[in-house]
Order: sequence, then C-alpha cells, then structure tokens
Amino acid sequence: RYFHFCKLPGRVMGIRLLRFTSVVIIVLLLVAGALTALLPNIKDDKMPNLRREPKTQSQSTLDSFTLIMQTYNRTDLLLKLLNHYQAIPQLHKVIVVWNNIGEKIPEEMWNSLGPHPVPVVFKVQTVNRMRNRLQNFPELETKAVLMMDDDTLVSAHDLAFAFSVWQQFPEHIVGFVPRKHISTPSGVYSYGSFELQNPGFGNGDQYSMVLIGAAFFHSGYLEDFQRQPEAVHALIDETQNCDDIAMNFLVAKHTGKPSGVFVKPVDIRNLEKDTNSGYSGMWHRAEHLLQRSYCVNKLVNIYDGMPLKYSNIMISQFGFPNYANHKNKM
Amino acid sequence: RYFHFCKLPGRVMGIRLLRFTSVVIIVLLLVAGALTALLPNIKDDKMPNLRREPKTQSQSTLDSFTLIMQTYNRTDLLLKLLNHYQAIPQLHKVIVVWNNIGEKIPEEMWNSLGPHPVPVVFKVQTVNRMRNRLQNFPELETKAVLMMDDDTLVSAHDLAFAFSVWQQFPEHIVGFVPRKHISTPSGVYSYGSFELQNPGFGNGDQYSMVLIGAAFFHSGYLEDFQRQPEAVHALIDETQNCDDIAMNFLVAKHTGKPSGVFVKPVDIRNLEKDTNSGYSGMWHRAEHLLQRSYCVNKLVNIYDGMPLKYSNIMISQFGFPNYANHKNKM
Repeated sequence: RYFHFCKLPGRVMGIRLLRFTSVVIIVLLLVAGALTALLPNIKDDKMPNLRREPKTQSQSTLDSFTLIMQTYNRTDLLLKLLNHYQAIPQLHKVIVVWNNIGEKIPEEMWNSLGPHPVPVVFKVQTVNRMRNRLQNFPELETKAVLMMDDDTLVSAHDLAFAFSVWQQFPEHIVGFVPRKHISTPSGVYSYGSFELQNPGFGNGDQYSMVLIGAAFFHSGYLEDFQRQPEAVHALIDETQNCDDIAMNFLVAKHTGKPSGVFVKPVDIRNLEKDTNSGYSGMWHRAEHLLQRSYCVNKLVNIYDGMPLKYSNIMISQFGFPNYANHKNKM
Repeated sequence: RYFHFCKLPGRVMGIRLLRFTSVVIIVLLLVAGALTALLPNIKDDKMPNLRREPKTQSQSTLDSFTLIMQTYNRTDLLLKLLNHYQAIPQLHKVIVVWNNIGEKIPEEMWNSLGPHPVPVVFKVQTVNRMRNRLQNFPELETKAVLMMDDDTLVSAHDLAFAFSVWQQFPEHIVGFVPRKHISTPSGVYSYGSFELQNPGFGNGDQYSMVLIGAAFFHSGYLEDFQRQPEAVHALIDETQNCDDIAMNFLVAKHTGKPSGVFVKPVDIRNLEKDTNSGYSGMWHRAEHLLQRSYCVNKLVNIYDGMPLKYSNIMISQFGFPNYANHKNKM
C-alpha cells in the first residue's frame, strides 16, 4: 500500500507531503518556543513582592492601588501631599475629588510641573458633599483603593506595609485610625476612641471601625456604597459627616466579621496647622463627635441591627524601623 | 358522614379518639418545648468570647486548648510552671511529656496537692527524645495545642490573647518566638534571628518560622508530623534538636503560606537560671545554632525544596496593657 501511495501521483505528492510536514514541524517549534517563554520564573522561596516595580502603564492592577483624595479649601496641603504620595511604590493613579465648587482645578500648574510618576485625575464636583469621594469612579482600575484625607501624611514605609497587609485581608478596611462604638445600658450607642471605656471583653481595648480617611479597602465597596439605602446617603448629606462610619457598617455587614484591621502607623502626621487657607477640618466642629454617635444609632435603625464587630488585633511591621521592636526580653 | 362516624361504634370510638387527640397534643407541646430550649441566645453584637468559661468537664473543645509540656531534668521548674499554667482560662487539660527516663512521675505529690483546676496527665516516655512531645496523644481532645518549653513562662494575658489570634488563624503556628532562614549566594541556607541580615524584601525584617516551644497550633499537625518521612524523624533524633523547624516546614508545605503568625509577648520569661537541677537547656550547646542551619538544609533535601515563606506581620493586643500602645501621635 505504501509503495503504491508513493508512486501515484509520484513526485508531486511527495513534495506536497514534505512541504506539509515541514510546516507542521515549524508550527510545533514556534508553539514550543512560545510556551517556554510563558513558563513562570521558578523562585525558590515565594517572597511577597515588596520590591518597587518599574513604573509602566501596565503596572499590574492587582499589585497596585489607586489613591483617592478628596479636597476642600486646602489646595496648598493637597499639593504638598501630592508631591509625597505620587512617589509611593505600587501607586497606580491618583484621583483628586475636587470639592472646591466653581474653582478651577490646578491642572495647568500641575502639567507645567511634570512629568509626574503617575497619572493624576482631577474630578470636578458640582456640589460640596462629603460622600463625593465614595463614587465608583470610572478611572479606577485597581482592586485596591487608598483613601486619604487631604491633611494627612502617612510615610511611604507605613503605606507599603499596610498595602501588603491589605493584600492578605482584602475584604477588610486596613488602616491607621481605629475607633469604636460602645453599648450603654439604655441600648443607645455611643461613638469614640480610647477615652471611652473598653467594651469589656477580656483585657485591653477593642475597636470596631477603621476610619477611611487613612486606609486601604477594596474598590468593590464603592459600588456597594452606591447601592446602599437612600437613607444612608441622606444621613451623610445631612451631617456632612459619617461616611466612614457608614462604610464600616457596610463592610461589617458584608463580611460578618470586624470591618477593619488596624495597622499601627510609625509615622503619621496631621498637616492641618500647616495650611495657609485658615480652614480647619470638619472634626473641629463642636458637634462633630455627637454627630457621629447620632450616626451610629441612625445606621443601626436603617440596617435594623448593629453589624459592627470588635477586634483587638493590632498589626505592626516586624523589625521596622529596627529589630528592637520585637527583640525578645527573655 | 361525620355523624355516621360518630355513631358507630359510638362512645368507645369517641373515647379512643379523645385519648389519641390528647396524646398528639401533649407530644406536640413537648416537641415545642424542646425546640424553644434549643433556640440560640440572640446576642446583639457577636463578641469574641474572651470571658472565662466555668471549668466543667464539658468546656467546649473548640473554645479551649491543651497544654503539652515536655520536661527533662527540671522538675522544679515544671511544677512552678504547672501552678501558673493550670489556671489559664480556656485551658482544657495539661499533658506532661515525662522525658526523665526511669524516674517516677510526681503523681503522688501532685494528687496530694489537689484539687487542680484541670486534669494533668503525665506521659511516661521510654526513650529521652526531643520529638516525644510531637506524638498524637490520645488524651488530646481539643483542636488547639499550646506547646511550651519547660523553662518558659508566658503571662496569662499573652496566652489568652494569642489563643484568640490562633482561633482566627487556625492553620498557622501562632506564637511568641520568631526566627528566620536566609539564603546565601552559594544556595546554602542559614538559620537565625534578627542578627542575620534581613531577607531584603522592602523594609524591616522578616521571619519564616515561629518556634513551637511557646506557641499554639492545630492538633491535627501532630498526626501530620507522625506521617512525615522517616528521614525527618531520624534527623530530629540525630540532633536532638530541630523538631520545631521540622514542624514549620510541615505547616508551610501544608498551607502554602508562611507557617507562623508572630504575636509580640508583653510578658515572657525564661526561668532557666531558676532551676536547682543545674541543668541548662539544649540551646546552650556550642553547636546548637549550627545544627539548626544544618537541619534547614537537610529538610530542604528531604522535601526537595524550600517551603518556608516569609512574613513581617507582628500582632499585638490593642490597648493592652494600656491605650498608650496605640495612641495616635497625630
């Protein structure tokens, strides 16, 4: 049979077969080559990647985060902070939420002082609302959001570490400012910090919220926030406050666990006093804390229950700034 | 039809029906009563249960742990430590691994000084082996094991907190003594602590092991350990060392994550100098650290790879001993 095949139509058939075979071989070699190129680098120890990635457009949106900073009447602080934050490793992009209604964004000045390490987008707002920063911005490409108040400076070391912690606890708000609610015999809740009595579970204190003015959280929660009952949005608009408390309620309800993970900052600074605008933050208002207690109770009504949970986990970076922070006293 | 039924066979049928109906009603009431008793207590805020449970035989084996303490030639320290550890809340039972071959256990004395808060079981060993403590003891009822060296005192506060942390990270070794391995250009590994250079991933130090001489881990790992290659057991027997390094290899391989979670102790003490036995621990031997580096490399051979992973997460208890440990410097 074989010889028969070879003979008819003879040489022509043989050449076609040869050509066909060659093409197949070449294709196979190309595929093999492509596969080899796709092979992952075998690393002996799988280390978390804390090295600074070269800043390219394609910095992985899983390994980087978007800074969202809302600003009102403190453009001098904003610009000072932008110079600092724009250089944080693993920053993908900055979204500035411009609450200075009717005022031009400093785009010209910004561009004239380029190039900049990352893109910075100025989102002009039409109404000065506290919850403007919780929109699900289309420019947001990363899974992680870093939200910072426009008067808060956190060191790059703290941010790099906290981001790595967030990557291990992506469903939580991982940040630097813990707060708590407490229950009172009357059933009315109160909001506060360490000055309030401990919730009384074993030793030490507990926190039930991590404020979003200096924290990492999953960008999906912005979409969740938009879907919350209108009463929540109305409450935040009424008080121009409590958006962070509302976010903690949302996250706690979603996870069934404590909403936040507190990372103890080594170097966190409030630059409020440094502003030339004469404007000091909302938290100076006399009614600020009372409002927040009010918000806690309103949110409990809206959500028909208290979803916040306590935690006493405080995370620090091992051996930073130096090994003395864990040296065994034994 | 109904009247027809009622009439035949008349009164007898009526009484039977009445009896039957009564029985059914009573059974239903009993069932309803039982269901009510089984209803869970509705708690407003689901707090982690750090309160001390009354010590009954039925202390939940999920909410309690078993202390396993191996002892050799330091019975005075053992008894001192037992007085301390027997009173730790959430302790279920103590298992003392008696490596004093041929020597009687202090059972008479122990009983004469009863009653004791929890059962203490003395497991007499036939050979003085370091890995005796890693047997899967039948007396072990809890999911959690607390393993302590017989010269180490950790405060009740630290233990209660670390146990609560373990409950949140049950697949990890949660403990108080972090160590690391480092890679060298030659590919040979070295073992050490903070005195070794940082592994070089971002800032600060990293640890890749948590020693089991002061740590919580899942009791299932004891069974896993027994199933490890004979070469692992032989290595530990050869060195009378490294059982803890082997356990970290095991856990890291099992989870694909860093084996340990380091909880920074507030009060941990080594009582070695307090013993009257004149015996000082194995770690004083000149070759101790070199042996441990040796073990790391041997285990890499046995497991055909380095499974240990680095972590820089250091956990402390929020607001304990006091709120100053997290007070915001802003």
